[in-house]
Amino acid sequence: MASDVSPLEEARLAYRPQLPAALRTGIAQVTLEERDPAALAVAIRERFPHTSGRPALRLVPGTGPPPRGPLRVGVVLSGGQAPGGHNVILGLVDALAGFDPTSSVVGFLGGPKGILTSEYRELPRAAVEPYRNTGGFDLLGSGRDKIETPEQLETCTEACRALALGGLVVVGGDDSNTNAAILAEHFLAQGLGTVVVGVPKTIDGDMKGGGIEASFGFDTATKVYAELVGNIARDARSAGKYWHFVRLMGRSASHVTLECALRTRPNVTWIAEEVEERGQTLAEIVERIAEVVRRRAEAGRSYGVCLVPEGLIEFVPEMRALMTALDAVLDREVGASHGAAPAERVASVSGLLGASARATFDSLPAPIREQLLLDSDSHGNVQVSKIDTEALLVERVEARVRAWKAEGRFPGAFHAQTHFFGYEGRCAAPSNFDADYTYTLGHVAAALVAFDRTGYVAAVQGLAGSVERWSASAVPLTSLLGMELRKGRSVPVIGKALVRTDGPVFHAFARERERWAIEDAYLYPGAIQYFGPPEVAGRGPLSLALESASG
Amino acid sequence: MASDVSPLEEARLAYRPQLPAALRTGIAQVTLEERDPAALAVAIRERFPHTSGRPALRLVPGTGPPPRGPLRVGVVLSGGQAPGGHNVILGLVDALAGFDPTSSVVGFLGGPKGILTSEYRELPRAAVEPYRNTGGFDLLGSGRDKIETPEQLETCTEACRALALGGLVVVGGDDSNTNAAILAEHFLAQGLGTVVVGVPKTIDGDMKGGGIEASFGFDTATKVYAELVGNIARDARSAGKYWHFVRLMGRSASHVTLECALRTRPNVTWIAEEVEERGQTLAEIVERIAEVVRRRAEAGRSYGVCLVPEGLIEFVPEMRALMTALDAVLDREVGASHGAAPAERVASVSGLLGASARATFDSLPAPIREQLLLDSDSHGNVQVSKIDTEALLVERVEARVRAWKAEGRFPGAFHAQTHFFGYEGRCAAPSNFDADYTYTLGHVAAALVAFDRTGYVAAVQGLAGSVERWSASAVPLTSLLGMELRKGRSVPVIGKALVRTDGPVFHAFARERERWAIEDAYLYPGAIQYFGPPEVAGRGPLSLALESASG
Repeated sequence: MASDVSPLEEARLAYRPQLPAALRTGIAQVTLEERDPAALAVAIRERFPHTSGRPALRLVPGTGPPPRGPLRVGVVLSGGQAPGGHNVILGLVDALAGFDPTSSVVGFLGGPKGILTSEYRELPRAAVEPYRNTGGFDLLGSGRDKIETPEQLETCTEACRALALGGLVVVGGDDSNTNAAILAEHFLAQGLGTVVVGVPKTIDGDMKGGGIEASFGFDTATKVYAELVGNIARDARSAGKYWHFVRLMGRSASHVTLECALRTRPNVTWIAEEVEERGQTLAEIVERIAEVVRRRAEAGRSYGVCLVPEGLIEFVPEMRALMTALDAVLDREVGASHGAAPAERVASVSGLLGASARATFDSLPAPIREQLLLDSDSHGNVQVSKIDTEALLVERVEARVRAWKAEGRFPGAFHAQTHFFGYEGRCAAPSNFDADYTYTLGHVAAALVAFDRTGYVAAVQGLAGSVERWSASAVPLTSLLGMELRKGRSVPVIGKALVRTDGPVFHAFARERERWAIEDAYLYPGAIQYFGPPEVAGRGPLSLALESASG
Repeated sequence: MASDVSPLEEARLAYRPQLPAALRTGIAQVTLEERDPAALAVAIRERFPHTSGRPALRLVPGTGPPPRGPLRVGVVLSGGQAPGGHNVILGLVDALAGFDPTSSVVGFLGGPKGILTSEYRELPRAAVEPYRNTGGFDLLGSGRDKIETPEQLETCTEACRALALGGLVVVGGDDSNTNAAILAEHFLAQGLGTVVVGVPKTIDGDMKGGGIEASFGFDTATKVYAELVGNIARDARSAGKYWHFVRLMGRSASHVTLECALRTRPNVTWIAEEVEERGQTLAEIVERIAEVVRRRAEAGRSYGVCLVPEGLIEFVPEMRALMTALDAVLDREVGASHGAAPAERVASVSGLLGASARATFDSLPAPIREQLLLDSDSHGNVQVSKIDTEALLVERVEARVRAWKAEGRFPGAFHAQTHFFGYEGRCAAPSNFDADYTYTLGHVAAALVAFDRTGYVAAVQGLAGSVERWSASAVPLTSLLGMELRKGRSVPVIGKALVRTDGPVFHAFARERERWAIEDAYLYPGAIQYFGPPEVAGRGPLSLALESASG
């Protein structure tokens, strides 16, 4: 009871993250191999004159050492937590120390804001070591602030100059890496020698492509969610009483839901990208679920599991139209009925909507209608992530079942339980896959700084194979950028990688889902294992394996 | 992808559950050692003339074999799922086969109802083997039906006679084991030779005492919940943005919440038994949470974790009084406003309540008031387990914080997320502790049948020590019974073991909770490990260790 770390954390402290062959002796004996630069859009080339047109890189065994002397490197954790963030820092610290023991690392506190306010801490090895293989971002904290305005860019430049940083490692998702690209360009334009390196992080799994095979944290988080979904499926089957509707994190992309579906084989799974492509309406979605509920009830199975991605509702055409209409109306409404009682506000807002949006709005259950209004943010925007999509679906399916029952067309019962899993997985201790992957990413980031290569994102290729054969690489941030319209302006951004309905991962799911719907084909993956045979303790995401197998 | 079991399930199939030394060679070479019978209340002796006054038993190495020939034994899983149920059956099958290969086991389907309707399946070893070390009750299903009325007892007697059962093993909690005691008595009175054996199961951990150290499933389920609470605590600390209010299963007893608190060290934990003893009101509970929220905010920590047992609300005096009043009113109300709109019903019911109950009712948030009415069951009883206690607390604390803010007495922010964990843990694959414990219990049950000892519950003592030294035992069911008033009648029941606020487990918590409140003393236990060093893969519940250490 006296120990301040759990037995598992203590045991995990002893785990030495593995490195690919090229990095076994650290970064002192590697060379950079250059690939041909990717073709870039003119707008990107013009916006990034200093950092565009650079080659992709690969770290291979060489004679070293890297050209730069002892280094002082800053690191910042940006955005939502993902398992493995601490190992990125440990990898960075270990790699720099191995290359030059007088090197040092400083960590900015509370995310990018920490750079702007110069809040940081020194990170000697002893400070980082206790965080080896742990989850969370609590070593430094995190934040969602951006460094965007000319003033912020200037403040950041001054901070890096004042700290004499040879490098700045930005651990984050698509937005943070877009930010890193802008910083790299800005620093070069200002003649600042701070090398900027991005590290791809997000449990959503939507930062990939262009040489990035996976973002870190996805493997661990999906393993936690799949554990829970599997346990719930086993409960559903054992009790024979409930349908469980489970909403999973992933607002834009449904990678998390798809990976969990492959690991657990639920009866119904929605992939938002497919819903959008097919233009499926809420009524069609409800009809499909109700149909499976009925067919299973006919087979004597009044239970089941339905997976729903957090962002589903945004991809349903009439709901998307309603949101747009509501955003406009709520903007105007703020002065008027904003302070009224919920029921009054609902009536008032309904009156302000056009006919089609009104029909959709009025058809929703009262709590959801209130949720749509109450949870609008300070700009009057509906906050989709707070809508209980799973509860909405349950209510609609219940209504459908009642109608069938009245016609004598529904045998059995329909009782539902709802769940939402998000916070449960973001800070789990990294799986061996994520522990090795992030430790390697930290080494790659260190190498990029030591070799004076700015504007890159650290990448590891061949992740579906053994760690030994992973290829430590780097991809120019500019090669990931595209121009997108944001708030009326065309700006460079790293786009989110969505689930491809013509890809091997979706196919593996689509091929089987009809069988999973009616049979009990559930798989029970169980808890993440950090020890034991490689089949249970050594595997990465199924999505990666499927993508790799398809070439 | 093609496999029908997950990699972990496959790996776990290879795990051989361990047995205590006395059972290493099965049940063919054991002897029963008798202890002095416990003193029983007169009412119990009179109600159970055939089965009372029996000695406690201990299985010790002997020359065997047991007196009865090849056996046919029935088994039934009763009530909510608990990890390890399948291993009880496997242990039973293995033990009987080892003793006499022509023995057989039949499993009743869907709980006790399966006995009444004679729905069962033969359980040859090959049918059970794939369920080795798996979670869930899906081999047989379960159910909450009871065998109580004279007609049901008679039907059950006939079923056991028709199947020529030498034994009936009832796997269940306090109610099911009470039922087993009644069945044992009834069978003897009828001259039926079917030996009845109970096996203590419940994730709630409230069937213990009188020679039973723990119910199976508690260890695994609390490990799953503690994993999630730990992950959430790490998220809270990393993000620094949210208070997480987590409701955990356990309606009568708070063992689950207490075990999880010891494993994770949250900032605030409620133990329902203490709330009742102290007569703490809802206002006092809210004040205490708000106070911790404020002190943490003052220390720059606008985040935290609060654990709440499912049954908390029932133990708050004014809420209990309200429930009682509501039960009475709802009974009368059914005809009148029962079909009205929720808001109308709430107003109507409020008018029917006495002054004190009405004051409590009216002070509750609208959704909770509606929940109290809408979820009343068919008998008009309020279904407490469906009340979102955690949401109620959040709303009240928010109000308190708003008031402080208005007075300028609250720095920082209070944003909360709510969670309820129950189904996530009931069907997890059993921990090594539960896997070994249940396999042993199955052996003990087999031995009791083979030695013709009816009316016992299988028990294992010394559970805090190594498996090798566990003591395979049996406790007379009658020794666990007490007389309780149920529905106006005095009936024999096995009482639920509540958390003892003067016990070593509660003390270990109470000693530290003030420190946990303000500091970040969180522990992150992580996922259940089935492999790896014994410190992570071999330990049972902390509660057990603390109870054992205190003598």
